[in-house]
Amino acid sequence: MKKTKAAILGASGYSGQELIRLLLRHPHVEITGFTSRQYAGKPVAEIFPRFRGQTDATFSEPNVERISADVAFLALPHGTAAEFAPALLKKGIKVLDLSADFRLKSATVYKEYYEHDHPAPQLLAQSVYGLPELYRDQIRGAQLVACPGCYPTSIILGVAPAIKKGLGKPESIIATSLSGVSGAGRKVVEEYLFTECNESARAYGIPKHRHLSEIEQEISLLAGSSVAVSFSPHLVPLNRGIVSTIYMTLATKPADALAVYREYYKDEPFVRVIASLPDTKNVAETNFCDISVRVDPRTNRLIVVSALDNLTKGAAGQAVQCLNLVCGYEETSGLLP
Amino acid sequence: MKKTKAAILGASGYSGQELIRLLLRHPHVEITGFTSRQYAGKPVAEIFPRFRGQTDATFSEPNVERISADVAFLALPHGTAAEFAPALLKKGIKVLDLSADFRLKSATVYKEYYEHDHPAPQLLAQSVYGLPELYRDQIRGAQLVACPGCYPTSIILGVAPAIKKGLGKPESIIATSLSGVSGAGRKVVEEYLFTECNESARAYGIPKHRHLSEIEQEISLLAGSSVAVSFSPHLVPLNRGIVSTIYMTLATKPADALAVYREYYKDEPFVRVIASLPDTKNVAETNFCDISVRVDPRTNRLIVVSALDNLTKGAAGQAVQCLNLVCGYEETSGLLP
Amino acid sequence: MKKTKAAILGASGYSGQELIRLLLRHPHVEITGFTSRQYAGKPVAEIFPRFRGQTDATFSEPNVERISADVAFLALPHGTAAEFAPALLKKGIKVLDLSADFRLKSATVYKEYYEHDHPAPQLLAQSVYGLPELYRDQIRGAQLVACPGCYPTSIILGVAPAIKKGLGKPESIIATSLSGVSGAGRKVVEEYLFTECNESARAYGIPKHRHLSEIEQEISLLAGSSVAVSFSPHLVPLNRGIVSTIYMTLATKPADALAVYREYYKDEPFVRVIASLPDTKNVAETNFCDISVRVDPRTNRLIVVSALDNLTKGAAGQAVQCLNLVCGYEETSGLLP
Amino acid sequence: MKKTKAAILGASGYSGQELIRLLLRHPHVEITGFTSRQYAGKPVAEIFPRFRGQTDATFSEPNVERISADVAFLALPHGTAAEFAPALLKKGIKVLDLSADFRLKSATVYKEYYEHDHPAPQLLAQSVYGLPELYRDQIRGAQLVACPGCYPTSIILGVAPAIKKGLGKPESIIATSLSGVSGAGRKVVEEYLFTECNESARAYGIPKHRHLSEIEQEISLLAGSSVAVSFSPHLVPLNRGIVSTIYMTLATKPADALAVYREYYKDEPFVRVIASLPDTKNVAETNFCDISVRVDPRTNRLIVVSALDNLTKGAAGQAVQCLNLVCGYEETSGLLP
Repeated sequence: MKKTKAAILGASGYSGQELIRLLLRHPHVEITGFTSRQYAGKPVAEIFPRFRGQTDATFSEPNVERISADVAFLALPHGTAAEFAPALLKKGIKVLDLSADFRLKSATVYKEYYEHDHPAPQLLAQSVYGLPELYRDQIRGAQLVACPGCYPTSIILGVAPAIKKGLGKPESIIATSLSGVSGAGRKVVEEYLFTECNESARAYGIPKHRHLSEIEQEISLLAGSSVAVSFSPHLVPLNRGIVSTIYMTLATKPADALAVYREYYKDEPFVRVIASLPDTKNVAETNFCDISVRVDPRTNRLIVVSALDNLTKGAAGQAVQCLNLVCGYEETSGLLP
Repeated sequence: MKKTKAAILGASGYSGQELIRLLLRHPHVEITGFTSRQYAGKPVAEIFPRFRGQTDATFSEPNVERISADVAFLALPHGTAAEFAPALLKKGIKVLDLSADFRLKSATVYKEYYEHDHPAPQLLAQSVYGLPELYRDQIRGAQLVACPGCYPTSIILGVAPAIKKGLGKPESIIATSLSGVSGAGRKVVEEYLFTECNESARAYGIPKHRHLSEIEQEISLLAGSSVAVSFSPHLVPLNRGIVSTIYMTLATKPADALAVYREYYKDEPFVRVIASLPDTKNVAETNFCDISVRVDPRTNRLIVVSALDNLTKGAAGQAVQCLNLVCGYEETSGLLP
Repeated sequence: MKKTKAAILGASGYSGQELIRLLLRHPHVEITGFTSRQYAGKPVAEIFPRFRGQTDATFSEPNVERISADVAFLALPHGTAAEFAPALLKKGIKVLDLSADFRLKSATVYKEYYEHDHPAPQLLAQSVYGLPELYRDQIRGAQLVACPGCYPTSIILGVAPAIKKGLGKPESIIATSLSGVSGAGRKVVEEYLFTECNESARAYGIPKHRHLSEIEQEISLLAGSSVAVSFSPHLVPLNRGIVSTIYMTLATKPADALAVYREYYKDEPFVRVIASLPDTKNVAETNFCDISVRVDPRTNRLIVVSALDNLTKGAAGQAVQCLNLVCGYEETSGLLP
Repeated sequence: MKKTKAAILGASGYSGQELIRLLLRHPHVEITGFTSRQYAGKPVAEIFPRFRGQTDATFSEPNVERISADVAFLALPHGTAAEFAPALLKKGIKVLDLSADFRLKSATVYKEYYEHDHPAPQLLAQSVYGLPELYRDQIRGAQLVACPGCYPTSIILGVAPAIKKGLGKPESIIATSLSGVSGAGRKVVEEYLFTECNESARAYGIPKHRHLSEIEQEISLLAGSSVAVSFSPHLVPLNRGIVSTIYMTLATKPADALAVYREYYKDEPFVRVIASLPDTKNVAETNFCDISVRVDPRTNRLIVVSALDNLTKGAAGQAVQCLNLVCGYEETSGLLP
């Protein structure tokens, strides 16, 4: 079978690195382009020595003209991704965007949260939110997939069964998330230095982190009405991983909330509903999202805990899962441990 | 001035180690006993090499008969502390208990949460909850001080101004906490091995962690009515530190919640109300609790974030602060950085 | 093609866990036994939640009678492994031993370093040291393979080209190694608690660590004469990885030591000779050993630095590499990233 | 007693931060200046929130004209420090330089290692190497003290007794050091990001790290002849701490090397000779250097292991110890735990 040609734009960040890791071992994909403004001209294996012996490729300047691919992954900053997408689509290249640029339906909300005009608002209508567990069929036929953020994936997968099965009240959602430092990307700023992050735990972005925009959009769609959510991200000293602990007021007294969750996700290859509370270490470098749930009769609340790897199910792995759908491959191709 | 003689029972755990650190430099205290069942007969500086050159003392078996002290710190497991307290008090030794044994007013609640009968229920009535910010005057005259747990300190200090000043509704409190691993004590069990905790973040003890009992007791006292609280502790890979992020439904629209907090704590030597969000690294090895607050008009909630060192303000430092009150010393003696 | 049946004895330690990870994805192997005294009767995926969805197997008591396998991996403590090996071999099961029991040619040296009599000295003569880069042909025909320790692998691979190509003097070797904490195994002892290891770096086992016995045996064999080596292991706060920095007095003035190393290892699938200095993070969870080399004319010394993952190339990965040789599979089967 | 006025130039780096920590609690010092180009005009407690409540000072531009102090600490990059020193000295301000600028006797060696001409070679002759254990008397009378680097302190203190007491041969010294990431300073570069350093251990700067120049200078002075040394620094994932493991060929068969070391350092307040191997965690945030020693008859080598905190005894603490000597205070003032 002919392999799908994939280009990675922005291949030298952490999501780019994870895309390389996953695609190098994907049975149906060949990487035909690795772009990086910063490292153009340098061998990929020099910048990421872990890939020595696995690829001889060299980073190149991002240049749509020269990209020869069936599919392009955009591991670029928001704002930049939307500048590349139109030309790629025009060339007939399908786009899997890992940035925030095409996740929101509304250019107004985009501007509110990202503080600049949307560079390509005409594409918002055709973009599909790349969360296979919710939008599998639409992703299959999509030209432009907007892969969700890491926090939103952990929270939306966590609350979807509770909302759809009537366990919890959507308008009561409060989500606290803990993230490893790679979630901030490979940005070279003081606050992400080792000595600043090690032995440090802290909240940030309260009460209006940018990811809140897509969290509320998707939860509102699940709930069938507009919903405001409390979301508090925290930075903790680990490389990879997100844990989200989510509270909802009970809408009913469930006999067995865990069974409801298990049933809801029983056919999902990458969601594992488990009895014990999830731990980031059990999902690190995998595409799994582990979820557990507790009912607290004392406070009349449902508490959901989810864990995933922010670079895999929270970014590159999810994008590859979407590629598998877009290209008609087995959904788990290249993604099992 | 004659120094206060202090004995540390259970001196070889992490709270014991922190007590040693603080008391060795306390200007008005002399440590006259270091007990440890496990290490009896061994030099303190052999078990804790950081104290080499600072003390020549040796650990001894815990034996009330032989303890010669004005004050005894109990850094013992719950259940055990309550076995030692009566005899110490009988000898006229004041007791600063770091365990959970004398924190609850009700022996019934104690049994519900700690799963054994209270060994000395007759002492519960006289015990004072050792949180100086709430009970300064009572601590001054106390024979038996029950120093609060690390999580409760971070949460109670976080919500007290909101409740007392009418900013938030006590019955709506949801608290998520992140703790460093020393919070689990020096228990030699698999789940606290380095390889199990490093690169791991996880929730545990949901929805009914033992500390919930004292959290609810104290919040109910602050609120003037019985209140149920949601509390979710998390374990993150750092040695020391707790961050608590606490949500409350607004009871009013505060003009300036931060100003209310600043005013409330303006005379407290160890509470720092700050504009930026607290970080464990800024309170490590100090007795400070840093607190900040945000108002979220979108969700009508108040969000409080507090940070402290679980071994200092969350355990040994707080106990020394209580000792200073009990003995009539400057409250900050031996505790400033 | 019929799969090789493999049993893992001692499957609940860290080497066992890594064997499970590697064998679950090995195309030619089926795991037919997971033994663990501690966890017998419990599902593998309960003890190692990362394997949820990948295996339904249960740990069983180690019992040679009941083991049905072509090959057995012994991930057992030294002393114990040698008790199981004879019966397994008698049943016609090939043995890949990850313990120290069959690495030494001399039962006397074994007793000197391991402080007990060798339980099965009669097998020492037939055992092959499982370092494919040195003993590939012998491993192919072996019934009993003694996979090297993690430190020895990093040091022997580091010095072999220098000795065989006459760059350095074997009798001058000084090796300093840094190891992640998983190298100590899953032993539940105080010194490996998170709070003891985090923010800690320390030497241990100086000057006569147990691994020195096999390091000297193999270096003496390479050198053709008996050689004493200085070896200083250090514990550093990371989960996985070993870096060894090795000094040798130059035996010649090499024009290009790196080229000599590259040539020496040019056909090795798992040794990467690189220009930059190795970093554990680039070999984590891989079977690669990265090596670089520097010549210091000022001190007339050769300095070699090697890095590998102590659980993969330093334990389970190397054992799987040996299995591939023993079974006649492609040497890299199941081992590429 | 009137306090000594101290200015800290370059107060916003990690050494500057540690100087602030130590001087804020020093009984005889008042900080009269905190300079920082980057943060001029900002409150010290905003940049270092751990100092909230301890100082109301503001960072200012470095400007010798405006500095009013008895003593100036230079926590500046090499090259920059030497630009400030002459003017400060001219104003009669004593200089405690934490940079490399005045450590070497030779401007030629300086240029060889630091790759630029020395900005103030005329001061090299009067500068005193600020290692109190070797140069206590000279420091007492010095106008310009060049505080040693972190690696050199750990290595020179480690070998001094062996050289002076004839235990080991100076020309055989090989030193391997492990450093926490704060040793690199607060430089905002990719290689020091949390995600790059965590789960990473690596050698760097082999075979000619800049600190080698002062290591060899001082060891040659101790030995009475010119000596070349092998030195290999490593970066390990901890905030603070250096461990150095040093090998020397035995010059004699010592009956009790540890006793020789104990005797040599018996009057030193900040060197602790210990039987067990040193651990960075036992010296963190202290001015102690812990040293142990082993004799290996098999290889005829002495192995010394030392540990210190790179920011305290390896930088700021040592500078304060020198200040105490320069000002005639108790040498331990402000420096005991």
